[in-house]
Amino acid sequence: MQWYFVAALLTVLTSSQGILTTLSQSNGEYKYDYATVPFLAEIFKLAVSSLLLWRECQKSPLPKMTTEWKTVALFPIPSVIYLIHNNVQFATLTYVDTSTYQIMGNLKIVTTGLLFRMFLGRRLSNLQWMAIVLLAVGTTTSQVRGCGETSCESLFSAPIQGYMLGVLSACLSALAGIYTEFLMKKNNDSLYWQNMQLYTFGTLFNMARLLVDDFRGGFENGPWWQRIFNGYTITTWMVVLNLGSTGLLVSWLMKHADNIVKVYSTSMAMLLTMILSLFLFNFKPTLQLFLGIIICMMSLHMYFAPPNMLLDMPLTVKPEEEKLVEVSVDRRPHS
Amino acid sequence: MQWYFVAALLTVLTSSQGILTTLSQSNGEYKYDYATVPFLAEIFKLAVSSLLLWRECQKSPLPKMTTEWKTVALFPIPSVIYLIHNNVQFATLTYVDTSTYQIMGNLKIVTTGLLFRMFLGRRLSNLQWMAIVLLAVGTTTSQVRGCGETSCESLFSAPIQGYMLGVLSACLSALAGIYTEFLMKKNNDSLYWQNMQLYTFGTLFNMARLLVDDFRGGFENGPWWQRIFNGYTITTWMVVLNLGSTGLLVSWLMKHADNIVKVYSTSMAMLLTMILSLFLFNFKPTLQLFLGIIICMMSLHMYFAPPNMLLDMPLTVKPEEEKLVEVSVDRRPHS
Repeated sequence: MQWYFVAALLTVLTSSQGILTTLSQSNGEYKYDYATVPFLAEIFKLAVSSLLLWRECQKSPLPKMTTEWKTVALFPIPSVIYLIHNNVQFATLTYVDTSTYQIMGNLKIVTTGLLFRMFLGRRLSNLQWMAIVLLAVGTTTSQVRGCGETSCESLFSAPIQGYMLGVLSACLSALAGIYTEFLMKKNNDSLYWQNMQLYTFGTLFNMARLLVDDFRGGFENGPWWQRIFNGYTITTWMVVLNLGSTGLLVSWLMKHADNIVKVYSTSMAMLLTMILSLFLFNFKPTLQLFLGIIICMMSLHMYFAPPNMLLDMPLTVKPEEEKLVEVSVDRRPHS
Repeated sequence: MQWYFVAALLTVLTSSQGILTTLSQSNGEYKYDYATVPFLAEIFKLAVSSLLLWRECQKSPLPKMTTEWKTVALFPIPSVIYLIHNNVQFATLTYVDTSTYQIMGNLKIVTTGLLFRMFLGRRLSNLQWMAIVLLAVGTTTSQVRGCGETSCESLFSAPIQGYMLGVLSACLSALAGIYTEFLMKKNNDSLYWQNMQLYTFGTLFNMARLLVDDFRGGFENGPWWQRIFNGYTITTWMVVLNLGSTGLLVSWLMKHADNIVKVYSTSMAMLLTMILSLFLFNFKPTLQLFLGIIICMMSLHMYFAPPNMLLDMPLTVKPEEEKLVEVSVDRRPHS
């Protein structure tokens, strides 16, 4: 399977995630406990990965599975980072409004690039750095509030702590992605075995979160397992399956491609959601959405197109050609 | 003199042009006849060019001056194009509001690139094309109306004729620039001799315009030469000198650099004006201005940086290196 096929699928599914979540609400409210969605998605991912690992075990050669404690102990860490991230996100939102938070979220694109370079030691060309910054600028441009919209005045008028927490949030979010990539590429263990470890801890952490919510609420509505499917509709189940599937695709990309591919995929999904919302929810198209799409498309081309295409260099020159291929292989992982 | 020094100076002067023009108004009105400004600027340019040509004639070798009718006859054409452009601009503004007109004006960047390729036969790399589109996107982004500003609803709600005229206007504006470049580079005549021809026709056309205005007004205020300096202040004279100087710099760039350099120079000036306006006129900084500046800076770097810097290719590889130098010379003219 080619990485760009998976990336395109991830874009479509991530984009439908936003739309399905909106459709799963009735009158702008969740009739179900949203915290149960990621929990069930983890269970789904765990089930799918177990099944695929079992199938792999029927064939020879047997899949590579490292079971030593030292390696397994690394797998709860992404869950821990996400836990911290969720709390920082919550704290940020006490200082800034959701529009500002959404716009600051684009910083994640740049922090992912930085951590990609720092922790994974992957070199990016000057042009690729510019492409990453442009991607963040493009997604931000598409989100600029038009005239006559509400919550305009509040944009970027929050106390400094809000912005610092926003930056921290962007760093943590990037760190979780970078760490997962490190984990998946650390050895050539079977992807499904790695997934099983990842999702087992994911399931446990999500379960703990539901319990903590119950404790905080004083078990008013009873324990979570008694009301887990309350208010579930077909659409809610589709949200669960969709979230689970995107998780599996991200995991595959972390193993066979990289975080930058994932970042492009989810950024394009955001734009696709905005375009689909124009039709589905009768949103008014804005000039800034149009500009943002052009910027992101340019960024995509700048990052992934082979250098000789960008510079119109003849393909016949051999010595440098090898150099160029080396650069382009580095940035275009294959399945 | 290096082209980038001239381009930087053009940016600063073009930027001050907008600010000086605003400062020359009292209570948002012109107390003088604005049509006299370009006329006097033409006289100033003609005087400076004559002086410089005279100085050149004192030295040997004598400057090259083609005086045959066939060549001289080409010099009124830019004035004719500007005359048509002014009328198209006037017609466009009967259909669209000034905000929309200003935003459509950024199309000139792209049409300049297209005519540059078509009429001057200059090849641009894929990356340079992207840089040109990004420059137009960046300047447009900086102009997106924020929330709470007036004349929002009217944006892009004009009849189709308005947009067609806007596109025509962008083409004519680009054509005037491209034609002037063709004229200046056609032969190796002295720049000052070429300027003298250009500005003589410019002076005549501006004089004709003042006369036509008088006829239209039925000579109510007397002929233009009797009231030419009415309402002039020091600031008005600075506007004249500034306009004249930018004209001379553009002329120099057309001879020794190209239209794309000019387009970058004036686009950067627009951003600089917006930044200076924040301080001078207490304008509120917007997120879109910030984003626009980043986009334009990236575009500038993409267009003018040597390819090996963009791609981090080692400078030691010789065979391809020659190719790269060829590409970079093509896009970086020297004085």
